[in-house]
Amino acid sequence: MTLVSPAALSQAATAIRMLAADAVQKAKSGHPGMPMGMAEIALALWRAEGGAVRHNPANPAWPDRDRVVVSNGHGSMLLYAVLHLTGYALTAEDLASFRQLHSRTPGHPEVDVTPGVETTTGPLGQGLANAVGMALAERLLAETFNRPGHAIIDHHTWVLLGDGCLMEGISHEACSLAGRLGLGKLICLYDDNGISIDGHVEGWFSDDTPARFRAYGWQVIEDVDGHDVAAVASAVAEARADTTHPTLICCKTVIGKGSPGKAGTHDVHGAPLGDAEIAAMRASLDWPHAPFVVPDEVRAVFDARARGAEAEADWTNRLAAYRAAFPDLAAELERRLAGRLPDTFDALAAETLDALDKAGDVATRKASQMVIGHLAPAVPEMVGGSADLTGSNLTDWKGVTRINDAPAGRYLSAGVREFGLAAIFNGMALHGGFIPFAGTFLVFSDYERNAIRMAALMKRRVIHVLTHDSIGLGEDGPTHQPVEHAAALRLIHNLAVWRPCDGYETAVAWISALRNADGPAALLLSRQNLPAQPRTPEQKAAVAQGGYVLSGRANARAVILASGSEVGLALSAQALLEKDGVAVSVVSVPNLGLFMAQDKATRDAVLPAGLPRVAVEAGHPDPWWKLVGLDGAVIGMTTFGESAPAPVLFKHFGFTPEAVAAKVKDVIGA
Amino acid sequence: MTLVSPAALSQAATAIRMLAADAVQKAKSGHPGMPMGMAEIALALWRAEGGAVRHNPANPAWPDRDRVVVSNGHGSMLLYAVLHLTGYALTAEDLASFRQLHSRTPGHPEVDVTPGVETTTGPLGQGLANAVGMALAERLLAETFNRPGHAIIDHHTWVLLGDGCLMEGISHEACSLAGRLGLGKLICLYDDNGISIDGHVEGWFSDDTPARFRAYGWQVIEDVDGHDVAAVASAVAEARADTTHPTLICCKTVIGKGSPGKAGTHDVHGAPLGDAEIAAMRASLDWPHAPFVVPDEVRAVFDARARGAEAEADWTNRLAAYRAAFPDLAAELERRLAGRLPDTFDALAAETLDALDKAGDVATRKASQMVIGHLAPAVPEMVGGSADLTGSNLTDWKGVTRINDAPAGRYLSAGVREFGLAAIFNGMALHGGFIPFAGTFLVFSDYERNAIRMAALMKRRVIHVLTHDSIGLGEDGPTHQPVEHAAALRLIHNLAVWRPCDGYETAVAWISALRNADGPAALLLSRQNLPAQPRTPEQKAAVAQGGYVLSGRANARAVILASGSEVGLALSAQALLEKDGVAVSVVSVPNLGLFMAQDKATRDAVLPAGLPRVAVEAGHPDPWWKLVGLDGAVIGMTTFGESAPAPVLFKHFGFTPEAVAAKVKDVIGA
Repeated sequence: MTLVSPAALSQAATAIRMLAADAVQKAKSGHPGMPMGMAEIALALWRAEGGAVRHNPANPAWPDRDRVVVSNGHGSMLLYAVLHLTGYALTAEDLASFRQLHSRTPGHPEVDVTPGVETTTGPLGQGLANAVGMALAERLLAETFNRPGHAIIDHHTWVLLGDGCLMEGISHEACSLAGRLGLGKLICLYDDNGISIDGHVEGWFSDDTPARFRAYGWQVIEDVDGHDVAAVASAVAEARADTTHPTLICCKTVIGKGSPGKAGTHDVHGAPLGDAEIAAMRASLDWPHAPFVVPDEVRAVFDARARGAEAEADWTNRLAAYRAAFPDLAAELERRLAGRLPDTFDALAAETLDALDKAGDVATRKASQMVIGHLAPAVPEMVGGSADLTGSNLTDWKGVTRINDAPAGRYLSAGVREFGLAAIFNGMALHGGFIPFAGTFLVFSDYERNAIRMAALMKRRVIHVLTHDSIGLGEDGPTHQPVEHAAALRLIHNLAVWRPCDGYETAVAWISALRNADGPAALLLSRQNLPAQPRTPEQKAAVAQGGYVLSGRANARAVILASGSEVGLALSAQALLEKDGVAVSVVSVPNLGLFMAQDKATRDAVLPAGLPRVAVEAGHPDPWWKLVGLDGAVIGMTTFGESAPAPVLFKHFGFTPEAVAAKVKDVIGA
Repeated sequence: MTLVSPAALSQAATAIRMLAADAVQKAKSGHPGMPMGMAEIALALWRAEGGAVRHNPANPAWPDRDRVVVSNGHGSMLLYAVLHLTGYALTAEDLASFRQLHSRTPGHPEVDVTPGVETTTGPLGQGLANAVGMALAERLLAETFNRPGHAIIDHHTWVLLGDGCLMEGISHEACSLAGRLGLGKLICLYDDNGISIDGHVEGWFSDDTPARFRAYGWQVIEDVDGHDVAAVASAVAEARADTTHPTLICCKTVIGKGSPGKAGTHDVHGAPLGDAEIAAMRASLDWPHAPFVVPDEVRAVFDARARGAEAEADWTNRLAAYRAAFPDLAAELERRLAGRLPDTFDALAAETLDALDKAGDVATRKASQMVIGHLAPAVPEMVGGSADLTGSNLTDWKGVTRINDAPAGRYLSAGVREFGLAAIFNGMALHGGFIPFAGTFLVFSDYERNAIRMAALMKRRVIHVLTHDSIGLGEDGPTHQPVEHAAALRLIHNLAVWRPCDGYETAVAWISALRNADGPAALLLSRQNLPAQPRTPEQKAAVAQGGYVLSGRANARAVILASGSEVGLALSAQALLEKDGVAVSVVSVPNLGLFMAQDKATRDAVLPAGLPRVAVEAGHPDPWWKLVGLDGAVIGMTTFGESAPAPVLFKHFGFTPEAVAAKVKDVIGA
């Protein structure tokens, strides 16, 4: 290892500042203020000698690495600078390509794009919530897999965050829960620079943040000079010493520190400093080097490759000892960390499909619980939860223990915290070892919408069990009745949206969601009972294509498309029409997006060209026009709902066999 | 006034309990636990003698009434019972119709449905945020209109809330800001019953709530026995005495108190008690009366009609004195409370349209700021704000003072609190006297989505200025680039969604949004400059129909539809096609929903039947299929965005004149 000179150490923070300032200047956009303000904090965390973060730049996938989340993701250049300097495969050229198309240094940190980036951040507050999920994942894995003398899972989760994260509501949800859960290996460093985009935060943010976090049950270390590496390091040591409370370290910093003319102002938050200011900065910081050039002796301050390799090698040796002592556990841990379903999964899935095929007329939320009951006991990576609607979402299963109450629990009663739960579960999926599923009412997917989007963007497997999926919710009324939500969720790319019509389709949806490691799913489930549909083996196989002929007629004059609770309605309309001598086929579309992704031949086989089409769904009609065309019709909700018993509402809003049959006749001119 | 006997007083809380229990039982659904647990708190607030709330049951629209928000809206029967007993036009028959179609007693309180209901609640936490907005509205009106000796606006805002509201993130956003703003006339009563749907909250909610609220700068009165009317009343008096801090009164209560078998359990939260339990309750509470029957002497405890009439009459007299002293101010106050725009508005609108027509090539966010600059100084009910993106959203105007800094300010730097800001502004609109408009990036409409929905459901005029409306945002990347958001907002019924293509359309959008008193609007605005389009007087008039022919060709073989930044692109494609001898018309669609609502003749004039159609919008393609049909095409975003400069991204994602022209040729077979 290269020896680190005192002179180099004093220039190490400058290196971060200059890399950030130069990269933003070259990109002509970006946020230099945070990296410049947090440079010494980065040094406390990441210097090779005495730095807090345990990581191996050569292997960003090392399972027992510390996780670091930059929740104030606009400060991405801090992280990129650190990853570059510590020895990740991120070159000076990568830094110079900051914010350019397909570079490894996008505007905000993106997981799977840059080695060493653990989660995609930018939407404020969510990184912090992801980190709560990562810390929870670490604890649950440790509780499940560690054995005396074998602490095979033992790492910290670090968060950098700013005022913005702390103002966001999700910080309350996630941190309140983290405090209750006592996540002692979660350590957050607050960049308390007193500035946000509108100016000095005191005008809109006067919380006593230490008192607030103590109220959550956190350890709080306040009044730390964020520009004093030793002070930050000392606070970090204190944070680590408390293993039963999460820690917030409040670091007083100067935003944009190092900029002679702009430090401490909001001008430095989100815009390039300008060539003149950067030149002045170079002079005042005694940094004669060209942009993106860092002398070797300064690099040596950060270079974590040797220590990182040692740390991982030590862990690999310990893993070998663990494997020797507990071969089954080790294999199971490796399977889970790899995100592979159990070998028994295919057989289990087949059993589950059979069982659900015989479930009879049940609400699909109940069918979902039956599926969970079949699968979860044998798929230990499944961790469930609900935002305080367990008895309504039916997301728990027999014999499960709550994370709230017991070690290695598998169910989180998350309280009334929809957004926090979704983002925490994103963090568990990011950490690895878990397939989380979260329950709330479909209407409250609004509250967690951006976290669902983030899972889709990050390609992470988080399953949303969204029950009470239409006016079928009944008396709770329009605030609780989703109308536009099925359509709105279907707009999120890479989110699988299922609205099954009975137990069998519910099982297919669940199994498909579990098998798709590359994205989240939303299961939209009924409160009310729905009729079980008989299916041929071919029809059963076809459910997985997202849309299929459930009840075909060779002489059909039209097709009725429906999803979920309206499939039974479509079949009733079909029967009515049949009495009038009008034959129609019924197509069930449990996953519209998946059906649209099928090849043309598959789609044409389900929806023959030229056959008039009527779609019916108790939601906003928009998604269906791409299938029914200008000559077809959609029966949907064109207003908000009402408070009344569900059967009254379906009739009131025109979801009756008679209305559907009349619309079909209208469309075919019968 | 009827004299109130001690016996009647002791039965008054029982009356509320029994009305709630009987109504839920009759409806076979609902939430008896909260009303039963908060009955004494209701008595402290609403008894005619010594109750805290100043209101007049005969006139729920009295402008200077206290506002009461039941943020734990599932406890609607508490409010209905109180409104019934205090003398509002809400009969025993209304109570007996609880949760039935078109009754005045829906499952959750709905404004404009039930006299005395101030806001629609149910989605937890939002009522509390609405109340912050109401209290802010009261203060701003008082600062603007009151004169020495003439406190013509002087009322309190009361909130009932539960654990659920306090767990929700929005409670943090709204209460942190309320603390900073020092809203001393906001008084919240916390129903601390220790129970939520999943059971005893201590498993997931162990906040030291009093410490948390003190950290926000609130007055907190803790450990109040919520079943002791005198104790609650004393706390209320203490709350009122502090006029510079909002107050949280923490009332220890027993959920479902009065139910001999179920009090204190989560079984009583959200389900009917059952006939047997209700019978036992009647016996144990010594309440021999039939359901919905309340003896006159018990009614007398609540009957607020005489006192309410007196209070309003006193105010009316004071208003007369104020009008005599300040006739112009009084007229202006009445105009604003009535929600009528200034008489000068039409002239102002015409000037603004003219000015914006000459704005040249500007970003529509800049055009929006120009519109605001024209209108806001002369429309004093306009109050702006941004979730810490003022300099990006361009929501402020020259000379405006911040609410954060000065009395009677008109601009709120709300901090990074999108959801809180939207719900607070809903509260200001509900209070009356204001047309609030809120800025953030379009992508973060996700965070505030349910508050936008609530404004639409409640038919309230709140304007959302959502800038950086596509990949045109550029380098900040996919976390900040809206893709599905324009489509998702268009799904919300009664929300006017505008995506203007230049300064003129931006002015039409703003003016239309201001004129529509019955719903919210979302203005989706570009970060980047867009070309100004010339228009004939007929075209100018046609913008207000939502879609119109911007560049027609008599011999058109196809129509290109576009919105916002893609209108210029469509015109470039038109020019390219013209070179190849293919004539196409270009239709600008600044408001797709409004265009769909036009009569068929208007739509057919814009989109002649049979003419092939291609739509282009840098967002999810779904909304356009209803116009282009199965034979048309949509050029949209089929993935998330990327981090890169905007021009690079438009090219990368296929938004080029060449690609649009090629698609048109493809569709028409040219």
